[in-house]
Amino acid sequence: MAGSPSVSEREQRVLGIIETARAKRGKFKDPQITMAHGAGGKATQSLIEGLFVPAFANDSLSSMADSGIVSVLGGEVALTTDSFVVKPIRFPGGSIGELAVNGTVNDLAMAGAKPLALTLSLILEEGLSAEDLRAEVKAIADTAAAAGVNVVTGDTKVVERGAADSMYICTTGLGLVDGRAKLSPAALRPGDRILVSGRIGDHGTAIMLARGEFELDADIRSDTMCLWPTVDALLDAVGPSLRCLRDATRGGVASVLNELARASRVAMLVREAKVPVHPAVAGAAEILGIDPMYVANEGKLVAIVAPDAADAALEALRAAPGGEEAAEIGECKTEPEGMVLVETAFGGKRVMDQLVGDPLPRIC
Amino acid sequence: MAGSPSVSEREQRVLGIIETARAKRGKFKDPQITMAHGAGGKATQSLIEGLFVPAFANDSLSSMADSGIVSVLGGEVALTTDSFVVKPIRFPGGSIGELAVNGTVNDLAMAGAKPLALTLSLILEEGLSAEDLRAEVKAIADTAAAAGVNVVTGDTKVVERGAADSMYICTTGLGLVDGRAKLSPAALRPGDRILVSGRIGDHGTAIMLARGEFELDADIRSDTMCLWPTVDALLDAVGPSLRCLRDATRGGVASVLNELARASRVAMLVREAKVPVHPAVAGAAEILGIDPMYVANEGKLVAIVAPDAADAALEALRAAPGGEEAAEIGECKTEPEGMVLVETAFGGKRVMDQLVGDPLPRIC
Repeated sequence: MAGSPSVSEREQRVLGIIETARAKRGKFKDPQITMAHGAGGKATQSLIEGLFVPAFANDSLSSMADSGIVSVLGGEVALTTDSFVVKPIRFPGGSIGELAVNGTVNDLAMAGAKPLALTLSLILEEGLSAEDLRAEVKAIADTAAAAGVNVVTGDTKVVERGAADSMYICTTGLGLVDGRAKLSPAALRPGDRILVSGRIGDHGTAIMLARGEFELDADIRSDTMCLWPTVDALLDAVGPSLRCLRDATRGGVASVLNELARASRVAMLVREAKVPVHPAVAGAAEILGIDPMYVANEGKLVAIVAPDAADAALEALRAAPGGEEAAEIGECKTEPEGMVLVETAFGGKRVMDQLVGDPLPRIC
Repeated sequence: MAGSPSVSEREQRVLGIIETARAKRGKFKDPQITMAHGAGGKATQSLIEGLFVPAFANDSLSSMADSGIVSVLGGEVALTTDSFVVKPIRFPGGSIGELAVNGTVNDLAMAGAKPLALTLSLILEEGLSAEDLRAEVKAIADTAAAAGVNVVTGDTKVVERGAADSMYICTTGLGLVDGRAKLSPAALRPGDRILVSGRIGDHGTAIMLARGEFELDADIRSDTMCLWPTVDALLDAVGPSLRCLRDATRGGVASVLNELARASRVAMLVREAKVPVHPAVAGAAEILGIDPMYVANEGKLVAIVAPDAADAALEALRAAPGGEEAAEIGECKTEPEGMVLVETAFGGKRVMDQLVGDPLPRIC
């Protein structure tokens, strides 16, 4: 197509990047684990696709969602697990204990499953103050109560001073798959609309600022919250027209869209100007050279809905708790298959690729 | 009773210890977390009874078993979770990956639940070699396949060099409660028999020797194995006469018996001479001043059975994989309520109390 008058130089560059990206498969060849393997981007994907999926081959795992579905007693339950290693453990708007509950119930909600029960496994560093532990136990209990789930069993391990960073929490959630939910990346079709449930990037930015590593001061709070009420409202409003859901945690909205585009083989086009971002988050991101689309959220979801249900879905999102700024940010396309493009505020297009490094370690 | 000719001096001492022990409640008052809080003994119990149970109050958690029971779809499923932080990660007879699977499916089995599915959450230290990770992923996959369960979902976090000790694994298991199982510490009655499914102390001793901290060399291998086939055989053989099951991991058989005695308010009498212990384990324990009754196992269970079912249960245990040396080691009594006594090889009695410190950290 080189030389064709209908293809601008910029578009050629985009096409070149697309070819390169397509050629990159999830192979795990690194000799050592690096922070990038935990960042939710390309390295994480190589670990999952190159090591875990082949090793544990089964239908549930291969679907690559954050929850596995188990058939039992004539129905379906969802299981999801997450370890939380966030640093610092308390930050504006939340703490590790709140994340550990909301992160896990949200993964269930994304599978269209109503959260039923949680398990709690703690890895504590010798010397952790009882006060810190009490505070997080209370945070976990309060957040679980707010989400309507019981912590039904637990485990505690203590490791020597220096063998953990104060405390790590692993929560696993059990949920009951809702009959109204028919969610799968395979359901995505060109023309489907891409919605977000509110403004993005608050959580990751709050963590970054709480670390005090930057000369920045802004009133940004983590958005940690339970998303089941939001999902329940969406299912009520549009039922089977809801194609797929993802909470935009590690790696942010950009990573989630890339994952869905790859899994569904549709293309996605995001209109940058439509993406709701708190001005302080946008400001901090600009100063730090980070795109808010890659910054973690802990109470925001991406919903892909059929075109004729987009308005009803958006209305439901906006009426849900914390959803005032929900927005339609783009749509699914046919080409380039498996890729995410972003239309900038100036009308140009660029590839919104997977995260390569790890701009913000220990964010959730 | 002092001076009464029918009470020997030794018995008086035992009674004194009993009174002291009864007065000790599970209160969490320590200012900091110590290794003892993860050792499965008194400090762990104070954390559970003094902090977790009040915070997360619900029926399932209050039963203090290793699994929580959740009612769903008209039936009951069991959930259990465990973090594995063992050091070293590979040792004679097994590795952290095998433990992570067997430890979790065994907790389900102890609830009379057939293991259905596992979730896997990894906390990896930056710099972990890919070779070590590959080896453990393979160990997990092979052990899960042997136990007949799928790993249905997972999570990976990476923490900075020095913020973990190579790798920690959190596995959560989902099981289907078997209709034949009516297991509860509340079912224990004076006269019930105490059985173990084989020789004890192998796992903890293998770990201890693998650390190379002691000038001891002995061919002792971890006993890590899946106990569901054993439980299945027991349920087949004696059904509802099986009162309660526990796998004797952290804190060993002694801790499990203390937990059951406290929960059921029966007394227990263990006949030391009947407890099967590998001569090399007994030798190592003697040199190190550790009682094998307190040493961790990863493939042994304690079963409490009704008196008239004891022979059939023992036969079933001996026919199960790895059960050749299964034995009846004692019985439940009326007094002293909630306590465990041991009849030594010389005919004396002493209190087999809960573990106070932590003789062997990072054992499972």
